[in-house]
Amino acid sequence: MTQLENLHRDLRLIVDRTIRAIQPDKLVEEGVRNLHLEGKKLFVVSVGKAAWTMARASLNLLENRIVGGIVITKYEHSEGPLRDVEIYEAGHPQPDENTYRATQKVLDTCQSLDADTEILMLISGGGSALFELPLIDTALYEAINAELVGSGAGIEDINTVRKCFSGVKGGKFAAALMPRPIWAIILSDVLGDSVETVASGPVSTDTSDLLMAKAVAKKFDLKVTAEALNNLEKQALREGKAKLLEAVEVTNAKTYIGGSVSLLCELTAEIVEDLGYRPIVLTDRLDCEAREAGKFLASIGLSHSESEEHLAFIAGGETVVTLKGKGKGGRNQELALAAAKTLAGTKNVLLFSLGSDGTDGPTDAAGGFVDGQTWTKLEENGLSVNEVLADNNAYVALDSIGGLLKTGPTGSNINDVSVVLVRKDLDL
Amino acid sequence: MTQLENLHRDLRLIVDRTIRAIQPDKLVEEGVRNLHLEGKKLFVVSVGKAAWTMARASLNLLENRIVGGIVITKYEHSEGPLRDVEIYEAGHPQPDENTYRATQKVLDTCQSLDADTEILMLISGGGSALFELPLIDTALYEAINAELVGSGAGIEDINTVRKCFSGVKGGKFAAALMPRPIWAIILSDVLGDSVETVASGPVSTDTSDLLMAKAVAKKFDLKVTAEALNNLEKQALREGKAKLLEAVEVTNAKTYIGGSVSLLCELTAEIVEDLGYRPIVLTDRLDCEAREAGKFLASIGLSHSESEEHLAFIAGGETVVTLKGKGKGGRNQELALAAAKTLAGTKNVLLFSLGSDGTDGPTDAAGGFVDGQTWTKLEENGLSVNEVLADNNAYVALDSIGGLLKTGPTGSNINDVSVVLVRKDLDL
Repeated sequence: MTQLENLHRDLRLIVDRTIRAIQPDKLVEEGVRNLHLEGKKLFVVSVGKAAWTMARASLNLLENRIVGGIVITKYEHSEGPLRDVEIYEAGHPQPDENTYRATQKVLDTCQSLDADTEILMLISGGGSALFELPLIDTALYEAINAELVGSGAGIEDINTVRKCFSGVKGGKFAAALMPRPIWAIILSDVLGDSVETVASGPVSTDTSDLLMAKAVAKKFDLKVTAEALNNLEKQALREGKAKLLEAVEVTNAKTYIGGSVSLLCELTAEIVEDLGYRPIVLTDRLDCEAREAGKFLASIGLSHSESEEHLAFIAGGETVVTLKGKGKGGRNQELALAAAKTLAGTKNVLLFSLGSDGTDGPTDAAGGFVDGQTWTKLEENGLSVNEVLADNNAYVALDSIGGLLKTGPTGSNINDVSVVLVRKDLDL
Repeated sequence: MTQLENLHRDLRLIVDRTIRAIQPDKLVEEGVRNLHLEGKKLFVVSVGKAAWTMARASLNLLENRIVGGIVITKYEHSEGPLRDVEIYEAGHPQPDENTYRATQKVLDTCQSLDADTEILMLISGGGSALFELPLIDTALYEAINAELVGSGAGIEDINTVRKCFSGVKGGKFAAALMPRPIWAIILSDVLGDSVETVASGPVSTDTSDLLMAKAVAKKFDLKVTAEALNNLEKQALREGKAKLLEAVEVTNAKTYIGGSVSLLCELTAEIVEDLGYRPIVLTDRLDCEAREAGKFLASIGLSHSESEEHLAFIAGGETVVTLKGKGKGGRNQELALAAAKTLAGTKNVLLFSLGSDGTDGPTDAAGGFVDGQTWTKLEENGLSVNEVLADNNAYVALDSIGGLLKTGPTGSNINDVSVVLVRKDLDL
């Protein structure tokens, strides 16, 4: 076998094993063990894009200790009925009436549970939209959101305001259930594993309050938001609910990060090591432009192409794509394709980039891969990488040379991992 | 001392020691030793931006074995008379009449030397413009250049045509002196150390010929170029100089790469190791967008900020800046500044980027550095990193917080090195 054939074989193994390793079943199992949930009487609340699979995993693991549950996931993300669990589907990335109805149901149900029933909260990415109950009229809430998004305010400032108007974000869900114990297992899709950010932290201590939200409204001259904040304040004081305006310290919830991009990197490192590569985890915080990350990683591969050992450079995170064209693709596909030129002609280097949810951008591919032959193959197909990238059309180009990774939706969602594999130079 | 103070101390040491280590004197000395030049009778031809310092180094090393020499360097790049050496200054990046005159002088002089005098050729970046003698009328040569540059042809195609019309590029200088031995020491400013590319390879075997140049002219529909190629062919055949149209195999020159970005990375690695850091050379081929490289490197620093040992991640190369604004800066300054947000708040990470020639972009700084306090300091000065980068104004921002590296022109030129220093987390 040539080193290139070896690389292609390893690629398939790495992708398959990685997808298996990040299945929610496995990650929820670790959470259950870590939080010592055996023996408790639990009601499951599972929100996010992986809510259905996470709930199913908990049912399989804890069997008849679970007295019931509610799943709120994105439309078409549930895979059928689950024993004793109500399943709701709702809007994403924009919440809709189904979001609010389902969240209200969660609140009502949890508040009416027997005193000895505890909450198993399963949180995955997308929960910010899928688990929400505004403290104000939903039309006004949506107008505030629109004002915020168009204001130039950063995501942190936006979240500060949103939390203020929310009945569940920023620890308010946990606060509403006090003192009922909440056990949370989180699949994180945010970099840095800050649990208060995943799904806007419904069971996490939070530091934002009304004053901070008012400061944001003032800073960005948000008129609708400012007036709504004033009205919210008056109403809360009138109803004796001033606590709603304060930062929330959560004391009844314990959290376990069941999966995150750090874990994705660690698992990938273990898998490549098992195949004989020395893993070098560069970062689990990658957030630069996808195509430039691809070029950077390719330059690492090229520089090490005369290595005397098999190497795997691993970078996890969530790169960004600045859309300028009208083509089809995703950040992992762009990252991979952009590496093709630098790697052209190498015989022992392969780069792949994989979205752990199995759907990279609006495509049916999880990502893509390139090697030393990709550039020439594309040229033979009359495709220029520069032109393809200018049109954000990586899917079509990679598809034409068999360079897509297709896993199908994985049921998990812990960001992306990009890997440069270098097999040792046999000529040395 | 805090870890941040330690990092600032180390930064100064690393920059000072690196600049010292890449001085041409040192690198030429290694070349002289490696090529076994002691005892030979040598005539020096030194071309490029470091031509003066390289020539001086050879005079110091080989004393009275050198019977004379010619330096061609950029305007204001010579630092005074050198014993027995004629010094010419000429145009860069565009060649001018002084270029052609000086190159003609080199050819004439070398061809009239005693039979036992050999050539010591010292080549540094900028030599493509500074060492040139067209085979055709210079006005026509410049018209062809203009047509090429505006045609959308890539640098390789451009060079194929240029070499065809040149009397010295692509090995033709060596061929003109056959069989006189030529010993070449090269300071490379191109990635990948392909000696045929530095200064357009005057003493390197080359594969481009008239047919390839004609193909380029046809591909890009270059009318002026096509006609000139036809005339050149007729003239050469008429004068019995058909050899000028062929690819050149150089048999009378031996080359030593005295310095390159690979060496810059190696030297930096040795220097940081001496200061207690474990060096990790990521690449010596970095060529992506400067600001994205900065973000990528920052994400590496952030991910390792809880390291239990001191780490230094090293990336060498030549990043690019896509100019959109009208500010002041350079690629190293942009790279460093773009890392500020990701590193904000860290206490034990510093990133710097350094141009080995000491002049990053059109500024008097060699590069810049950022740490966990940079972001806040800039905010206190009313500066937004995003806005500064949008205006390509990194110099002004870094200058306002003491974040520039100023070394003065170093007399060397072997690309850039970017380093992320991580000191171990003392709180662990």
